Amino acid sequence: MKKLCDFTKEEIAAFRDEARRRYDKICSRSLKIDMSRGKPSPQQLDMAQEVFDGACKITNYKSKSGFDCRNYGLLTGIDEAKELFAELLGVDVKNVIVGGNASLELMFSFISQCVTKGIGGCEPWCRQDGVKFIAVVPGYDRHFGIAEYFGIEMVNVPINENGPDMDMVEELVKDPAVKGMFCVPKYSNPDGYTYSAETVERLAKMKPAAKDFRVIWDNAYIIHDLYDESDELLNIFDEAKKYGTEDNFIEFCSTSKITFPGAGISALAASDNNIKEITARLSMQIISYDKMNQLRHAAVFPDVQSLKNIMKKHGDILRPKFEAVLDTLERELGGLGIASWHKPMGGYFISLNVETGSAKYVGELCKNAGLTLTGVGATFPYKNDPEDKNIRIAPSYPSVDELKTSAELLCIAVKLAAAKAVSES
Amino acid sequence: MKKLCDFTKEEIAAFRDEARRRYDKICSRSLKIDMSRGKPSPQQLDMAQEVFDGACKITNYKSKSGFDCRNYGLLTGIDEAKELFAELLGVDVKNVIVGGNASLELMFSFISQCVTKGIGGCEPWCRQDGVKFIAVVPGYDRHFGIAEYFGIEMVNVPINENGPDMDMVEELVKDPAVKGMFCVPKYSNPDGYTYSAETVERLAKMKPAAKDFRVIWDNAYIIHDLYDESDELLNIFDEAKKYGTEDNFIEFCSTSKITFPGAGISALAASDNNIKEITARLSMQIISYDKMNQLRHAAVFPDVQSLKNIMKKHGDILRPKFEAVLDTLERELGGLGIASWHKPMGGYFISLNVETGSAKYVGELCKNAGLTLTGVGATFPYKNDPEDKNIRIAPSYPSVDELKTSAELLCIAVKLAAAKAVSES
Repeated sequence: MKKLCDFTKEEIAAFRDEARRRYDKICSRSLKIDMSRGKPSPQQLDMAQEVFDGACKITNYKSKSGFDCRNYGLLTGIDEAKELFAELLGVDVKNVIVGGNASLELMFSFISQCVTKGIGGCEPWCRQDGVKFIAVVPGYDRHFGIAEYFGIEMVNVPINENGPDMDMVEELVKDPAVKGMFCVPKYSNPDGYTYSAETVERLAKMKPAAKDFRVIWDNAYIIHDLYDESDELLNIFDEAKKYGTEDNFIEFCSTSKITFPGAGISALAASDNNIKEITARLSMQIISYDKMNQLRHAAVFPDVQSLKNIMKKHGDILRPKFEAVLDTLERELGGLGIASWHKPMGGYFISLNVETGSAKYVGELCKNAGLTLTGVGATFPYKNDPEDKNIRIAPSYPSVDELKTSAELLCIAVKLAAAKAVSES
Repeated sequence: MKKLCDFTKEEIAAFRDEARRRYDKICSRSLKIDMSRGKPSPQQLDMAQEVFDGACKITNYKSKSGFDCRNYGLLTGIDEAKELFAELLGVDVKNVIVGGNASLELMFSFISQCVTKGIGGCEPWCRQDGVKFIAVVPGYDRHFGIAEYFGIEMVNVPINENGPDMDMVEELVKDPAVKGMFCVPKYSNPDGYTYSAETVERLAKMKPAAKDFRVIWDNAYIIHDLYDESDELLNIFDEAKKYGTEDNFIEFCSTSKITFPGAGISALAASDNNIKEITARLSMQIISYDKMNQLRHAAVFPDVQSLKNIMKKHGDILRPKFEAVLDTLERELGGLGIASWHKPMGGYFISLNVETGSAKYVGELCKNAGLTLTGVGATFPYKNDPEDKNIRIAPSYPSVDELKTSAELLCIAVKLAAAKAVSES
């Protein structure tokens, strides 16, 4: 196929007119589709509910240690839930804390702790000047939101198919003001890249200037595969142990996209030192998390295999949705040289990069036709995509039919924007 | 009855020998009773479970607005849960946020927000010098723990049967460094005092020098009556509105001691301004709390009357326990002039004040005989009871028989300590 940049003036005009005609036609349908967030679909929730209700036979409210889960106590979680996450994350049970329904809350509270109290025996970040974080971009808007909330300056480091640009990262951590980094190491949000073995090793090997440097290792999509064949991610703590850098990493995950987004359980894994500091703070913050929900989850999911079983069912629901979008992208935009994307093997998003300076315009065109995308720019700190080119697609919630329409509309908008850009250049 | 201070030397010796004989006898029984925390008993949990399971018929996981409670969304809670707490607290629904399983977490996070970001447009407390809080004493150790964690200096103000000494409070709030105050206004922890109408009015009328002064109005025992006749507490927001001081108060409560201590739901009520600031922070901290648990609670408790119904059952279980302790105190210590206490009409604690300088010794005697009390001193900031005289009794968890034994042991220990003190003086 001929690239748009090689089109003649007449070909561009015809290309634009055809896109405009199709755009107007779609506009006339008064669509109302929300593709903005990575929300699981009702179909996934019903499936999870079935698995849950079918397996959940809690009769005496007691954990296996005999503790009445309805009462106060067990700050760091019940044993069976800790064991489940320990197996999932490949760490010792003693290095796991099981939380409430939101891993985001665990992250927010951890960063808050660093800000108010400091970590690793260092001064609180609120008393240090110009604290910075590395933001792997494009990335997850809620990570950036936490840093922005606490006034932590973010420095962009681009991601590629192997993970963040490690040359840049290694350079940046020489600055003692650089205190940490947000990573979604598997099926990254939004690109769906998984960090390569080399990237994980280089991260593990790093000796940042800041003693209180901490990587938020948000393993949100740890077993969220779309296919039988899945990306492989090295265990960050196994690697870190080789270099004595375990304190640099705090890993987070949850069952939000395994069972219920609002009613699952979360966990963090960390070194002995970090667990000690986090537990000391938690003991002031809460008496115990909801152990009944932990008990329900542990009853339904006695081991990682049982988690994988339900994730296969999620994959079966999500795969056709991802493929509906990817097929449309390929069919409409393939070879034109006006957009690029990666086909993810898991996770919740597809990341579409369009012509520099045109993502906002694409977003507007879609919005005017009834399709809400993730706010353009939101995949960058301060909602500012410096090149205005990245668009996050969240295919999980709409139906396959809606996704086909949405993806088609999106592609038409990309074409209109590209025709405009090429005409103006 | 003759007071101990009026005993002759011989009478004191006999008194001490008799106490010592009984103490030794109890020691020989190798007791193991924990009366340290206000944990509901298994009997209460079973009763709550019965009420819960009997009424809980959730079939479609939808809130009454049609929202699927299993998914992300509704940051401040589902309508029906907000309405329940609004009715309970006597405030508008828009002034309520329903949280997770722990009101302590809501308080901790609110204080954390004041420390890191500031409140009411003021400088963050971490950037202000010598931030202080008023600690009503004796009080709740976990409140004091939050302040201590954040390095907020606490200034003791004694409580009496009408609430905190308001003359002292009014004087203290003239200092702009005094930023707030912890209150348990109904059935105070540990004394069981309820703030009088005059106290609430004076608090509402206060115009502290600090614009960012906030009262943590922890209404933990709002409907936790032991008798049909209950203490009356004025609605703090109704009073505050008269003086335009609504921003000074944040009210907290939970179902921890209504349904399940580890698996209930919590709420806060606040002015429009505070709700706005708290919601802005929450939107960075969490996507939504566990709405399935909110839905379950709202299904079981459609209104405040239904909450009162279950609280009557809790009262029926707790009342004999409180009376077992109070009867023993009266029988053993009444008239001796060596201890004082208040008979609470609700709440979770009895507060026993012994001879100055002897509470720690009483605690040790009890511990050595197998009875664990709340750490002596814990009812004061920094675990430091300056007069070493307050002991918190938590009668909820042990059985009535255990309580009879425990209270007897405690009284014997008080007698031994008093005999020691009077001999040494």
